[in-house]
Amino acid sequence: MGYIVGIDGGGTKTEAVLAGQDGRVLAFARAGASNYQLSGTDGLRRTLEGLVGELLGAVGGGEVSVLCVGLAGVDRPQDREEVASALRGLGREVVVASDGEVALEGAHLGGPGLVVVAGTGSVAWGKCGGKVARAGGWGYLLGDEGGGYWIAKEGIAMALRALDGRGPETSLGGRLMDHLGLSRLDQVVRWTYREPRPDRIADLAHIVFEAADEGDYVASDILYRAGRHLGELVLAVARRLGMEGGIKVATVGGMFSRKERLLPAMEEVLGHLSPTFSEPLLPPHMGAILLGIKRLKETSTTHEGNP
Amino acid sequence: MGYIVGIDGGGTKTEAVLAGQDGRVLAFARAGASNYQLSGTDGLRRTLEGLVGELLGAVGGGEVSVLCVGLAGVDRPQDREEVASALRGLGREVVVASDGEVALEGAHLGGPGLVVVAGTGSVAWGKCGGKVARAGGWGYLLGDEGGGYWIAKEGIAMALRALDGRGPETSLGGRLMDHLGLSRLDQVVRWTYREPRPDRIADLAHIVFEAADEGDYVASDILYRAGRHLGELVLAVARRLGMEGGIKVATVGGMFSRKERLLPAMEEVLGHLSPTFSEPLLPPHMGAILLGIKRLKETSTTHEGNP
Repeated sequence: MGYIVGIDGGGTKTEAVLAGQDGRVLAFARAGASNYQLSGTDGLRRTLEGLVGELLGAVGGGEVSVLCVGLAGVDRPQDREEVASALRGLGREVVVASDGEVALEGAHLGGPGLVVVAGTGSVAWGKCGGKVARAGGWGYLLGDEGGGYWIAKEGIAMALRALDGRGPETSLGGRLMDHLGLSRLDQVVRWTYREPRPDRIADLAHIVFEAADEGDYVASDILYRAGRHLGELVLAVARRLGMEGGIKVATVGGMFSRKERLLPAMEEVLGHLSPTFSEPLLPPHMGAILLGIKRLKETSTTHEGNP
Repeated sequence: MGYIVGIDGGGTKTEAVLAGQDGRVLAFARAGASNYQLSGTDGLRRTLEGLVGELLGAVGGGEVSVLCVGLAGVDRPQDREEVASALRGLGREVVVASDGEVALEGAHLGGPGLVVVAGTGSVAWGKCGGKVARAGGWGYLLGDEGGGYWIAKEGIAMALRALDGRGPETSLGGRLMDHLGLSRLDQVVRWTYREPRPDRIADLAHIVFEAADEGDYVASDILYRAGRHLGELVLAVARRLGMEGGIKVATVGGMFSRKERLLPAMEEVLGHLSPTFSEPLLPPHMGAILLGIKRLKETSTTHEGNP
């Protein structure tokens, strides 16, 4: 009777927990990114080997019955097989799931429902009747509508449109310059291009929220459009899964610390589906633990079924 | 009586011509980028020194009466002074103008009018009653609406929205995959992020034009929106300059090789200003020559006025 290890491997950090077979958490560990598409399966194995060693060390050693990893970009069966084979031996069983599956499993304890993320980027996942679907998550150049990068970028762009005479007046330009300690808007443009990392630009999103709070129409409109985009992500997933009224939507990510600015527009888009919004019941790494427990049960059922 | 040198210094190439005081072109030379904000005024001086030497060599030596340079990012008087002082000595007189001024001067031979560019990016300039105004030109992250990068990026994004179930069906995804020799749309996403240079992505814009030609509604809509954006750039400039009906708009850049896809939407936006669209009468480096001739006339008038 070994432990279960659940891992949420993301593009900036990897979180791992070790639990008993009853799901009780006994140890927690954290490492950097585990983006196997960038670092390769070897890099992923090294990261996870380190984490599993640290977790087992914290409980004085033992055996891992199931290692369950949630990762972005393992949507096709061959991706999962490739990753699972690279991780062979880190647990008696190795389960490779998508980042969406572990998030959904944690957020709704395995029941049907959706998760919508508005952090630096944006994405929605849903699960219903054993099917999982995703919308968005295409990154800062091709998508991420309604996420922090998008909100901040729209804030700068609308300030520039006001400067141009293309858009309505807004306090956003002045606020951005004040915040960055710059005296002209074209310096904000240079600041943006100097190092166009999405997270660096997303850090300016709070300025759009502040401007909206103080009555700036252009800023309010950006947040209204953000909310509609996030609603459309949820709507697309719910439709593809054939979900009907009463959908459960878990909201994740920094932008939802200001729910009141986003949920009304999301509700407008989703009205007929009567959504209820909540925090996830458990985080993604605990979703991985739940998937691990399920795998253990299946395995033992199969064994019991054998003569 | 020396020569006039006119230079159009851009972010990818620098074009220079040498002309007699009657504007007759006697030599042409070309060099790489002359972005002084990236390479500094020293880099700019080296580039222009080389070009002037090459031009004078081609005509067997002589003297430069006026060197007139059009550059991006010299909008403030202190920028111009800084650049002019770095270029001192390359001509008896040195005139530093913005890229917009030399383009306008060439396109409308010094008369009032506008220039709208839709190449990789987008920008509009206008000149009327001695005032020059610009709109757009904020680059691929914050603007460039209606340019080639924007058109291609929208093409990929709309294909992804169709895949998500967020947007209407379109042939764009299949066309992009065929063109790039890829079998899945997420590989197009990886292709995009692998090296997100605007010009590399802008090279896909022709796929959107082709899809529109073959009746793809989503592609036609992208080009319609591109045209409206380009119209808004022109409108903003015309408004700021107080221009009334009968504006002259010179169109520049690769996207206008397919004018019929862009002009109708531009005309919709600009209807009340009764625009007439045409090619520029002369290119920007010839605009620089015209500005150089003007400066010579002013100088000689001033001298004549002196006792």
